[in-house]
Amino acid sequence: MSDSSQVILLAHGSSDKRWCETFEKLAEPTLQSVENSAIAYMELAEPSLDSVIADGKHRGVERFTIVPLFLAAGRHLRKDVPAMIDELEQQHQVHIRLADPIGMNPRLGDAIRDVVLEELS
Amino acid sequence: MSDSSQVILLAHGSSDKRWCETFEKLAEPTLQSVENSAIAYMELAEPSLDSVIADGKHRGVERFTIVPLFLAAGRHLRKDVPAMIDELEQQHQVHIRLADPIGMNPRLGDAIRDVVLEELS
Repeated sequence: MSDSSQVILLAHGSSDKRWCETFEKLAEPTLQSVENSAIAYMELAEPSLDSVIADGKHRGVERFTIVPLFLAAGRHLRKDVPAMIDELEQQHQVHIRLADPIGMNPRLGDAIRDVVLEELS
Repeated sequence: MSDSSQVILLAHGSSDKRWCETFEKLAEPTLQSVENSAIAYMELAEPSLDSVIADGKHRGVERFTIVPLFLAAGRHLRKDVPAMIDELEQQHQVHIRLADPIGMNPRLGDAIRDVVLEELS
């Protein structure tokens, strides 16, 4: 991505370190392959979405794409995150696009099948 | 898998149909590739874990492997599900193995990277 745009992988967050470590590992291949990408947490862990966006804006990023590390869209993705985005767009004067949760992409179903086949072998 | 064992993909469940539809789509490639596999929900949706295990036992299944459709292990997978499993093993006289949540497998991180690259292209 160009310097003026950034991808943010958004995880729920937890006070349990092991939870965050799992998401950091899940994010690793993306962070290694996609320039100017970052992980952020909705709540209970750092970095927050606000701090990642503030940091990006400080470096000149104007456009953000949030890819939710959620398998499906529940209340968080239907209500809480869009409300957070509205506020962050106003506060930081940036444009933020919310992508579908990763579980909506058929690649995930294929990966799950491969995990299960590995589990059984 | 032989008739005497079954794989269960365990999702959280929700009263929101769209939530369950996403998980049913995620499960599809596994259900098509793995004989004697099923999806079940922890709560708020059907089929319940109890009903899938009762049905399997009725067909002669003695061993179940539960693969959690969760990206990471929180309270549900550390406490609630193991407690449910203890109860179900006693109630139905079966053996149930709880696998790691799918998000612990590196394949998922690779799939997420591919989803993000597709999102950007």
